[in-house]
Amino acid sequence: MYTEIFSQMKKQLGHLDKWLGSAAEYAKSKSFDPNVLASLRLAPDQFPLTRQVQICCDTVKLAASYLSGKPAESQPDTEQTLEELQIRIRSTITYLDGFGAQDFAAAATQVVSQPRWKGEWMTGADYFIQHAIPNFYFHLTTAYAILRHNGVNLGKRDYLGQQTKRPPVGASVGPSVG
Amino acid sequence: MYTEIFSQMKKQLGHLDKWLGSAAEYAKSKSFDPNVLASLRLAPDQFPLTRQVQICCDTVKLAASYLSGKPAESQPDTEQTLEELQIRIRSTITYLDGFGAQDFAAAATQVVSQPRWKGEWMTGADYFIQHAIPNFYFHLTTAYAILRHNGVNLGKRDYLGQQTKRPPVGASVGPSVG
Repeated sequence: MYTEIFSQMKKQLGHLDKWLGSAAEYAKSKSFDPNVLASLRLAPDQFPLTRQVQICCDTVKLAASYLSGKPAESQPDTEQTLEELQIRIRSTITYLDGFGAQDFAAAATQVVSQPRWKGEWMTGADYFIQHAIPNFYFHLTTAYAILRHNGVNLGKRDYLGQQTKRPPVGASVGPSVG
Repeated sequence: MYTEIFSQMKKQLGHLDKWLGSAAEYAKSKSFDPNVLASLRLAPDQFPLTRQVQICCDTVKLAASYLSGKPAESQPDTEQTLEELQIRIRSTITYLDGFGAQDFAAAATQVVSQPRWKGEWMTGADYFIQHAIPNFYFHLTTAYAILRHNGVNLGKRDYLGQQTKRPPVGASVGPSVG
């Protein structure tokens, strides 16, 4: 299921990219600098939108790297504008485009560790389920919440996007268009 | 991986229960009615905390039901206080306690549908990955964001909780205490 969940995360990054586009349009319609939104936060001791987007991107990028054993380039977290954040998101999507099912064949049993863990480690499965999935959706939803709270016109459909619904059983289905 | 992800969601519901406990303590320390928090929201056209908690609970309850074929009782969504929301969360945790790996053996290929889909359906795998996981974490994180925004003392550790770290390879590990 690793490949399918990463594919879903990649889809959600596409949504995040669009939300920032909607944020820029909203700012334009209200005649304020769209990059004001990049520095907003929901609490004084919580990260601003910029950092939420950066961590969201890094969570899925690093998870794909850890679980596949393929390298990931460190990014300097210098984004300050909505457009720069969109470039960061798109670079993460491009990185994820480079993965296929075979890359995650041994994901569950990978040894995942970080320098600050002092030698402690997690299995790939535990890391994915206990850290990567909850953390990715946390920062994605917090970014959404910051925008919603500040008036950007977003709804649940913008969050979930299109879902793979299949036609009624027994219904006549036309030929697929190639 | 279904069983492990449901287990993680159950763990996160336990965190949500604790956040509401922290919210009640915070209200007490500031001498305001804790149930004021239940009606707060981040935007005028977004659901308040009460509904975020109800949907979060229902998302995982219905997903477990759909993917296992086991029934789930409908709940009337009448909660108004933080304590009532905690009871709702605990009832969901109890429901999830009744599932084991064998219940999800055929999860991926279940046919999932809802009356308003007019006969359209999703596979269990698509429903889980495209709807249940993103939706659960969306409402969980939005509940967290409403509390954080209103001053409740929560941090990332309260969100992620304890993770299964394993001891350094080659380190001497004492006998486990039974």
